[in-house]
Amino acid sequence: MAMPKPPLPPHLQEVLAKPNPAVIGTVRPDGTPNTVATWYVWEDGRVLVNMDEGRRRLEYLRRHPHVSLTVLDGDEWYRHITLHGRATLQDDPDLADIDRIATHYTGSPYAQRDRGRVSARIEVESWHAWNGGRPWT
Amino acid sequence: MAMPKPPLPPHLQEVLAKPNPAVIGTVRPDGTPNTVATWYVWEDGRVLVNMDEGRRRLEYLRRHPHVSLTVLDGDEWYRHITLHGRATLQDDPDLADIDRIATHYTGSPYAQRDRGRVSARIEVESWHAWNGGRPWT
Repeated sequence: MAMPKPPLPPHLQEVLAKPNPAVIGTVRPDGTPNTVATWYVWEDGRVLVNMDEGRRRLEYLRRHPHVSLTVLDGDEWYRHITLHGRATLQDDPDLADIDRIATHYTGSPYAQRDRGRVSARIEVESWHAWNGGRPWT
Repeated sequence: MAMPKPPLPPHLQEVLAKPNPAVIGTVRPDGTPNTVATWYVWEDGRVLVNMDEGRRRLEYLRRHPHVSLTVLDGDEWYRHITLHGRATLQDDPDLADIDRIATHYTGSPYAQRDRGRVSARIEVESWHAWNGGRPWT
């Protein structure tokens, strides 16, 4: 089964627009996978995530920009959407991106103000969605 | 920061023992990452997951057995544990493994009985745990 290409149907984009639990997967320089829970926002048909400047994930992304993001529907986590794409990194010097993301999840700007932050914007190249073990169309 | 080695502390193993949301990451033959939500059980200090015999993830795992599993604490998903390890595959001809996993999550054996299933047991090589953006120790 080939993975569908973007754009995602509107009802799945509505799911992505919520402050859902999500896990991002990257590949480490030694070729092994890494996963970690992450906040994200869905903006203009792309994914925005944001990392502390000290995260090793930044180094992985510079060497290998391909990512896989699995978003669990926060209401019913047996529904989930996975996006495959490529990340482009950009500094977030005034913390505008992380503040927007933190506000989306917590209602407040990001608490820690003394660390540099880096944004990754992910262009979706393919996706799939599951609803209780069946494709979610 | 080096990732800790197993065994995990008992309070984190207690978290892993719950029927939590989880996402497994693998590397595809072309070197790009793949993630998908999965059921798992924590047994004898190892992770057990189980897949339909038709899943492409099986092919990925045969070629590249390294996996990363991020477990979200089902009570508070800003707490999460990531396990890195290596998967060993084994057929599940009488569906004993998937029934045990399904019962853990749903209270009932697995509904679909007409498809082959394959188990992957993951030996943990390293792990990290986060609690609201800080290491969870």
